Amino acid sequence: MKKRVAILGATGIVGQRFVHFLSDHPWFDLELVMASERSAGKVYAEAVTWVLEKPMPKRAYELTLYPINVDLIARERIDIVFTALPPDAAKELEPQLAKKGIVVVSNASPMRLEPDIPLLNPEVNADHIDAIEVQRRNRGWSGAILKVPNCTTAIATLSLKPLLDAFGIGKVVIATMQALSGAGLTGVPSMLILDNLIPYIEGEEEKVESESRKILGEFNGSVIEVNNAISVTASCHRVMVLEGHTEAIFVELKAEATIDEVIKAMEEFKGNKIKGMGLPTAPEKPIIVRREADRPQPRLDRLEGNGMSVVVGRLREDKTLNGVKYVVLGHNTIRGAAGTGVLIAELLVKKGYV
Amino acid sequence: MKKRVAILGATGIVGQRFVHFLSDHPWFDLELVMASERSAGKVYAEAVTWVLEKPMPKRAYELTLYPINVDLIARERIDIVFTALPPDAAKELEPQLAKKGIVVVSNASPMRLEPDIPLLNPEVNADHIDAIEVQRRNRGWSGAILKVPNCTTAIATLSLKPLLDAFGIGKVVIATMQALSGAGLTGVPSMLILDNLIPYIEGEEEKVESESRKILGEFNGSVIEVNNAISVTASCHRVMVLEGHTEAIFVELKAEATIDEVIKAMEEFKGNKIKGMGLPTAPEKPIIVRREADRPQPRLDRLEGNGMSVVVGRLREDKTLNGVKYVVLGHNTIRGAAGTGVLIAELLVKKGYV
Amino acid sequence: MKKRVAILGATGIVGQRFVHFLSDHPWFDLELVMASERSAGKVYAEAVTWVLEKPMPKRAYELTLYPINVDLIARERIDIVFTALPPDAAKELEPQLAKKGIVVVSNASPMRLEPDIPLLNPEVNADHIDAIEVQRRNRGWSGAILKVPNCTTAIATLSLKPLLDAFGIGKVVIATMQALSGAGLTGVPSMLILDNLIPYIEGEEEKVESESRKILGEFNGSVIEVNNAISVTASCHRVMVLEGHTEAIFVELKAEATIDEVIKAMEEFKGNKIKGMGLPTAPEKPIIVRREADRPQPRLDRLEGNGMSVVVGRLREDKTLNGVKYVVLGHNTIRGAAGTGVLIAELLVKKGYV
Amino acid sequence: MKKRVAILGATGIVGQRFVHFLSDHPWFDLELVMASERSAGKVYAEAVTWVLEKPMPKRAYELTLYPINVDLIARERIDIVFTALPPDAAKELEPQLAKKGIVVVSNASPMRLEPDIPLLNPEVNADHIDAIEVQRRNRGWSGAILKVPNCTTAIATLSLKPLLDAFGIGKVVIATMQALSGAGLTGVPSMLILDNLIPYIEGEEEKVESESRKILGEFNGSVIEVNNAISVTASCHRVMVLEGHTEAIFVELKAEATIDEVIKAMEEFKGNKIKGMGLPTAPEKPIIVRREADRPQPRLDRLEGNGMSVVVGRLREDKTLNGVKYVVLGHNTIRGAAGTGVLIAELLVKKGYV
Repeated sequence: MKKRVAILGATGIVGQRFVHFLSDHPWFDLELVMASERSAGKVYAEAVTWVLEKPMPKRAYELTLYPINVDLIARERIDIVFTALPPDAAKELEPQLAKKGIVVVSNASPMRLEPDIPLLNPEVNADHIDAIEVQRRNRGWSGAILKVPNCTTAIATLSLKPLLDAFGIGKVVIATMQALSGAGLTGVPSMLILDNLIPYIEGEEEKVESESRKILGEFNGSVIEVNNAISVTASCHRVMVLEGHTEAIFVELKAEATIDEVIKAMEEFKGNKIKGMGLPTAPEKPIIVRREADRPQPRLDRLEGNGMSVVVGRLREDKTLNGVKYVVLGHNTIRGAAGTGVLIAELLVKKGYV
Repeated sequence: MKKRVAILGATGIVGQRFVHFLSDHPWFDLELVMASERSAGKVYAEAVTWVLEKPMPKRAYELTLYPINVDLIARERIDIVFTALPPDAAKELEPQLAKKGIVVVSNASPMRLEPDIPLLNPEVNADHIDAIEVQRRNRGWSGAILKVPNCTTAIATLSLKPLLDAFGIGKVVIATMQALSGAGLTGVPSMLILDNLIPYIEGEEEKVESESRKILGEFNGSVIEVNNAISVTASCHRVMVLEGHTEAIFVELKAEATIDEVIKAMEEFKGNKIKGMGLPTAPEKPIIVRREADRPQPRLDRLEGNGMSVVVGRLREDKTLNGVKYVVLGHNTIRGAAGTGVLIAELLVKKGYV
Repeated sequence: MKKRVAILGATGIVGQRFVHFLSDHPWFDLELVMASERSAGKVYAEAVTWVLEKPMPKRAYELTLYPINVDLIARERIDIVFTALPPDAAKELEPQLAKKGIVVVSNASPMRLEPDIPLLNPEVNADHIDAIEVQRRNRGWSGAILKVPNCTTAIATLSLKPLLDAFGIGKVVIATMQALSGAGLTGVPSMLILDNLIPYIEGEEEKVESESRKILGEFNGSVIEVNNAISVTASCHRVMVLEGHTEAIFVELKAEATIDEVIKAMEEFKGNKIKGMGLPTAPEKPIIVRREADRPQPRLDRLEGNGMSVVVGRLREDKTLNGVKYVVLGHNTIRGAAGTGVLIAELLVKKGYV
Repeated sequence: MKKRVAILGATGIVGQRFVHFLSDHPWFDLELVMASERSAGKVYAEAVTWVLEKPMPKRAYELTLYPINVDLIARERIDIVFTALPPDAAKELEPQLAKKGIVVVSNASPMRLEPDIPLLNPEVNADHIDAIEVQRRNRGWSGAILKVPNCTTAIATLSLKPLLDAFGIGKVVIATMQALSGAGLTGVPSMLILDNLIPYIEGEEEKVESESRKILGEFNGSVIEVNNAISVTASCHRVMVLEGHTEAIFVELKAEATIDEVIKAMEEFKGNKIKGMGLPTAPEKPIIVRREADRPQPRLDRLEGNGMSVVVGRLREDKTLNGVKYVVLGHNTIRGAAGTGVLIAELLVKKGYV
């Protein structure tokens, strides 16, 4: 039997991606879409400024948009709520939902670093999901909160995981060129970015630096331990690209490795922790390695694996850091947000948590 | 008396910048403009597709464009030739000119790493100019060849020099977001870059990594010695910006330094080696430090100091590299090419080499 | 039995669209792809810079790219050749192919205005196809040449046809905002179009003005007669859009018509002349009318009907011309080139000409 | 003695242009800058997001930003107030100011069509200024309100005036490609316009159609009479350009005219009605005609005559309308807003109205 799901913050660009992924999902029925008061009461299809490259699904014409309402969610016997809310709203509402027995898969940043909250990039750390049991004990919740990582971090850690497993990693330097969609539909005025770039994204570098060490850490049965052997420094920049974050990554490797060995580690990485589980949204290849000199490119590569694969290119030796450098590209509102959220929900179902 | 100067490769974007700088220069008379056969014979103003933000100078309407011709340059008693030529043409022509007694200030990459060829970013290493004497002895030339650094390297080393002087530097990681003009007027087709970026610029990373260590090295009286204490790794990317290269730099500092001390070192840097010389193209402040969270930005900051200043922002501690990280912006076809070429020529005059 | 087809000029953007449409077509087998000498000999997938929003079809990995060779085409018993050639090459090669018994569906401009050459926008003037018989008699060909209209004209005439049929039309004023892809993969350098537009496209206005009167004319059994009751004036401009031409059209109507009547005429237009034929590439709705104030928009609407529909919006009264004005958008390399080419070929098969 | 002037709405892009023009003006002292409450109290330079291509003038660092306050303006003995306000605020405040004896030069649309309110494009209809006397009588004001035309209309009418004078004009069709700055600093989100255009600007077409007939009309001593012999139809579109509106204009001429005669009429047009007055902001050539096939282009031509000239190109015969067609470009926030506002104020001073 399909699980009943809802989306909070359904009209923004991440909300639209959720609507797209959930309108026709084999395991989920999209029952409720909620957003701010302003657009509530209308049919979803009429309230939204749809900007995806795919047509609006039929379900969008059937669902009415409601104002956000915890009681209504409970009354509708929703199993999983996907949230794409601003931090303040998330901070207030998500624990209320968890308390009422609802499982929340959240894109919002608050609580991401708490040791009993799984911060899941499933191919990398699916086993952290078991921290839910600790969380429930600690907090007295019958529901739970699971966090989707920051978009840049989700993309980076997916590419780093096979290097960590095969060779060990130390210092990591990340410089990003991030898409406009990361700031939301109206976040970046065209007058401020045309023939320009903005070398700053509020809070982003701190998220990359701290979240990546948690995702690459271990759940020891009681807390999720940060990986202190890794040190990450980031510089984050906004560029004139609609979708797709590009990241230049320089990484120290603990063991010697040829470029061919690094490519092999990445190409053979199948996300062991969810391998063979048959999760519908899991891409066949989490990491695609391109050999051309000038790839990955956001417009050409962002939809690989339905937007769930990251594409690595330009793998080359780095003598300064004693390791390798490469460029990785991922779809920020799919792999870095809604797609990974749906993958987490599938994992929850598979593991019997919902 | 003014020196007689010529430009080879005068119709491209760097050529246009040279025409702009030299048409009304207090020390130089622009006497000759040369380019490929195709456009030769026309008045310069009619042959060129002028794309600068400034109107074409009057001189552009008076000069006829000639095909490249070493004998004509000699016959016209040209003192200094500025070149903006493709590598192969430069390799062939520049030594011929030097042999004939002409001083060449060259933007082309060949010979940049030879130990008797000054690779000059004047505020950083003006004293390397004296290697000309060695060069003349070694090669039996009465003229000389001086090289303008690669654009990205010119911008980076200007920002690194005060850090080297004040604190010492070790590992340097540079990730760039480079302007379209760097590839020339027709280098990047719009179909390939709109809603996109290209994470590769041929040969660029190698140039940054090797040239910066030479520029930050020492001339010991017989050769220019590379600074082996520094190790640079670069990742270079093309973005949708007309002019202005933005670079995220992460740098290990050998001595402890607070952010305030780093800002002070940068702001007080006056390019000691050319300070007080009164070179007309030298900017008042080689480095401008901005405190706003979101600067520098290419469209807003690239013309600081007439395009000859670099603008540094986002200075912050880097715990991974034990140093600092920051963003530096410079005008690639001015500071990174024609402007620095003219500054070198002024230094040549001041030092009596021309 | 499927027809054997070839593409000449297969690596450009229109060529890529042809490869996409023909690799998996129910009526055609793509047997040969040809392009200039330079890339010949390689597997198509390796020779091409693929820029479509869809992945390269499997067939692209199986086909070898040949240099253009009329004898080889004949030897391979090709039924239909689709050409996306420069004008000079088309002028020379297309008649040679027709002479050898091959049917040519051509995107090149030469011969478009000759009275025995069908210039086909199938929903508008499918019956002009019968001019093939005259053409064969006149020229002694066993093959034939059929022309795809200029892209801007194909889009405009599709929107004008229901107005002509229902109300009669006189003066037509067309101002266009055309996509970069119309100039080919490398046609418009980014330095010349960023923060800019180019108010000129060579030969385009003349094509729109003359071709539209032929397409909206009649085949009288011996020649295709131009519609002299219509007078078209155009102004054509290139803007920063990847794909999709937008056209502001002002049109004099011979009979009174309310906006509702005009919308009705457009929405009910089913392209009578190919209606019910079951051509696979014919869109369900050739014209989609949008009521929102701010549509059509190229990025959001260009792929309607798989790129074969045009989208009309902003229909409003025009008191100056005594008629209506509106904005129409169409996909220039699909509806305006390859897609219409394939539709013409389907019509050829259906009518028994191939 | 210099006149004391103020700017209402000083932080937007038109406000910034006013600050630029008025900070160093030979006839005016900029004494007051006002904006919404939010940013009031700060020094102007700190409150504004400066986006002009020119550096902020020194005066910007000296002026404090005040909230809008009619009494303070009166108390400060301001002679002329320049307004760049939203329509509702303008509607309320401008008559209050006029009543208090202050002369208002307004960019806001309300009242533009009233027969006693001069709608001034000075080179075209400077003599309409005398309607002020009627206005004062009618309304009992000691001050006055003068309106700057809509930006698109200011540019179009400047190019149409010499045609009207020399040949007479009838039907006029205008299709525009308008810059982002017309929607204000944050008006067009980058996600909605990248790889796109928006074929709609609220209220714009109506303004062009009605205002142009008033500007090209006559002041008969008691009212400004609309020119009913002219009929204008417009289609307005937003494109990815920072500044500079491009307009394709098709115009019926009442008398026969060769293209050379049309060019002559435009080039000899010196804006007779302000010619010889020595107004500091009047451009030497109000209309610049370019002969190249591909000009005008916004990025290359928008700053001609300090942004006060319009640039016409592509002049060609139009057989459909029995006249000519051409492309005209003007700087929308200078010629179409602040620059024309300042020119109107200079005219007021010259004519002794202030």
